[in-house]
Amino acid sequence: MSLPPSSSTPSALNIESTLQAGKTAFLGMATLSTAQKNEALAQFAEIIAQHADLLLAENQKDIAQAEADALTPSLYQRLKLDAGKIAQLVQGIRDLIQLPDPAGQVLGRTQLDDGLILEKITVPLGLIGIIFESRPDVIPQILSLILKSGNAVVLKGGREATQTNQAFMQLVDKLNAACPWLPPHWATLLDGREAVQQMLHYPQFVDLIIPRGSNQLVQSIMSNTKIPVLGHADGVCHLYVHPSVKLDQAVAVAVDAKIQYPSACNALETLLVDKAIASSFLPRFAQEAQAAGITLRGCKDTLLLLPQIDPASDADWRTEYGDLTLSIKVVPSLDAAIQHINQYGSHHTDAILAQDPAVLEHFLNAVDSACVFANASTRFADGFRFGLGAEIGISTAKTHARGPVGLEGLVIYKYKLRGQGHIVADYVGTTAKPFQHQAL
Amino acid sequence: MSLPPSSSTPSALNIESTLQAGKTAFLGMATLSTAQKNEALAQFAEIIAQHADLLLAENQKDIAQAEADALTPSLYQRLKLDAGKIAQLVQGIRDLIQLPDPAGQVLGRTQLDDGLILEKITVPLGLIGIIFESRPDVIPQILSLILKSGNAVVLKGGREATQTNQAFMQLVDKLNAACPWLPPHWATLLDGREAVQQMLHYPQFVDLIIPRGSNQLVQSIMSNTKIPVLGHADGVCHLYVHPSVKLDQAVAVAVDAKIQYPSACNALETLLVDKAIASSFLPRFAQEAQAAGITLRGCKDTLLLLPQIDPASDADWRTEYGDLTLSIKVVPSLDAAIQHINQYGSHHTDAILAQDPAVLEHFLNAVDSACVFANASTRFADGFRFGLGAEIGISTAKTHARGPVGLEGLVIYKYKLRGQGHIVADYVGTTAKPFQHQAL
Repeated sequence: MSLPPSSSTPSALNIESTLQAGKTAFLGMATLSTAQKNEALAQFAEIIAQHADLLLAENQKDIAQAEADALTPSLYQRLKLDAGKIAQLVQGIRDLIQLPDPAGQVLGRTQLDDGLILEKITVPLGLIGIIFESRPDVIPQILSLILKSGNAVVLKGGREATQTNQAFMQLVDKLNAACPWLPPHWATLLDGREAVQQMLHYPQFVDLIIPRGSNQLVQSIMSNTKIPVLGHADGVCHLYVHPSVKLDQAVAVAVDAKIQYPSACNALETLLVDKAIASSFLPRFAQEAQAAGITLRGCKDTLLLLPQIDPASDADWRTEYGDLTLSIKVVPSLDAAIQHINQYGSHHTDAILAQDPAVLEHFLNAVDSACVFANASTRFADGFRFGLGAEIGISTAKTHARGPVGLEGLVIYKYKLRGQGHIVADYVGTTAKPFQHQAL
Repeated sequence: MSLPPSSSTPSALNIESTLQAGKTAFLGMATLSTAQKNEALAQFAEIIAQHADLLLAENQKDIAQAEADALTPSLYQRLKLDAGKIAQLVQGIRDLIQLPDPAGQVLGRTQLDDGLILEKITVPLGLIGIIFESRPDVIPQILSLILKSGNAVVLKGGREATQTNQAFMQLVDKLNAACPWLPPHWATLLDGREAVQQMLHYPQFVDLIIPRGSNQLVQSIMSNTKIPVLGHADGVCHLYVHPSVKLDQAVAVAVDAKIQYPSACNALETLLVDKAIASSFLPRFAQEAQAAGITLRGCKDTLLLLPQIDPASDADWRTEYGDLTLSIKVVPSLDAAIQHINQYGSHHTDAILAQDPAVLEHFLNAVDSACVFANASTRFADGFRFGLGAEIGISTAKTHARGPVGLEGLVIYKYKLRGQGHIVADYVGTTAKPFQHQAL
């Protein structure tokens, strides 16, 4: 069985041998030492820095094609590499070296009897299939996370970034030559949608699929494979405004959660307003929201206070707009808000704005979502902001257990974030506040 | 929407309302305090102890039916309750009270900025669907794990145990009356295979399915649902005998791993023997194995040393016999053994017998299975033996992450067990050694 070099894009015909080689590579990756992995990361950063010109030249070919195809400005923006982005990538990889090795962590150690010692220890997952769209700077981020964790990967990037993606894979070949301890085929770039479709049928080789892209892409992958999928199809995020809220803060957080990056999965889609505060909150919020370009839709009770906006239908409560549209519902109580979120939400990120500590705690405990926030924008739900170093995706799934599963296999974690009206806008741009990320 | 009491067995027509009620109950369960859950466990133990006569009488009806149907002795044995089994169940529930609450554990706490504190915390999973066969004592074990962890459950037991299962659910009604803080419908017994088939189509209500039963049952469920399935279809477990082994120990462990409970998923199916030790190990092992009633099948090299046994075909390497049949393969090296296990195994439990520490470490690191053991029987792969308190199932899956997933979402754990030739037979029966389960 002959295999292409890792930078090549295998044809549909040899997807099976490609995946098998990737799985074999994983078994080699899993036994690398921390020092070997960190040295590979250092080399990778260096190789990217040295070949910035190559990357920019190849990226220029994609840009030219994009201009010929009249791509949208936002897609163009995401596609374009520049010296600054490359320097950021290089720094990101160097930062990763400083993080502890996630594999080999001892989670527990029990003496079962004299000389019989049980350890629970973290290990890498396996061969991971990652599908992503346009942004070519995603490739080095993914590759460096895969290296650091000791996994192997097959990648499928957006067609618009073909030349840039292949340039990055050329640098992987250089990395493999510089680090002979890396097993060949630990990273392979797939070509064509057919390759992705075929990959879905090899659970014996692929341990996990991470689709990063449209709801449609994610749904389609989840429906067509037995391989576990890490990700989320929807991001229907909520903010509930409780009567004990500080009004100024509530308006600022709600606006931030919507406008800070409307197409992000952690952007606000439905604002739930307690009826006890609706008449003082809604007119004020509507004024700022409309000034910020947000289009509002409301339930019947909302329309009584904001007659100028369009009505929301039942379908709105399940809609991820992905743009500056926002639905508003007046709810009679805290429990009604929780019930609405658990029923209509996507279990991604949901927040409450309130000052009453008992109310905050009840909300954080009773909402069944991966991220539940008190007095902070939903936009904080992000691996970098959480201090995770980087993010391979955001998962709304709950499964996690391996081996004999006892009590601890019956629980999963959630992230609780407690703020004082914090908004993400303060942490981005040229005047951004730095994160402290200090362990307590 | 009217709902039956929790002890009833809902018809296929109202499975949707049953599951919806279970999901609603989960949201109530998830906010119970540790004290409320422990008090419910104490009441449950007391109620079972007080109603032993009811349980035995209803179990007698199942036994009578089983006798009429001429069930096999082993099924009869598993079906039959007696006063001793009930006392054990009661004690098991009381033991569970002493364990820490698995929910609400803080896994990490980070200050992102002044006043902005991120916590990573364990929470219960949701509504769990559990399908199991004949043994009626599984019901109280499952219910007590569900109670302690704050989940909700829909159960489907074996038809043979119908009367006993319903008797246990009557005791759940008494428990609910005694503990009004328990949300109604936190535990429901389903009736009929159709109910299980229908349940598979409600991912919006059911968060996890745990099938405990035949390979066929598990495969069928995994193929027909988008709901995550925790479990394992196969238990093709291996033992590799390295040249640095202590021969007596190797023979004793290999025999234990096979005969101790041949139909268990952690029983040995394939013995891999290094060619450097084959001629001294195999004849000795074969003598003891055949004395213990084990039927051997071997590869060509094995047959040269054991001409009296049948040949093994390629299909044998993937077979979970579930009885006293064992396949033997002579392998040329440690790496060949690892490769065989990773290729043909089911990633459940695999062990090595050797004295060379470097060999042991390489095996434990390179075998991609949930449980990897050094010098101990595969039969130790068990929640009780691991000191987990109890076991809801054994999982060969690896997915686990929720929320923003960084490096730590790219790893999962494995269990490493280091022994000195330990066998399970020493830990069962009337002269059983006790486990120490002492945290180090």
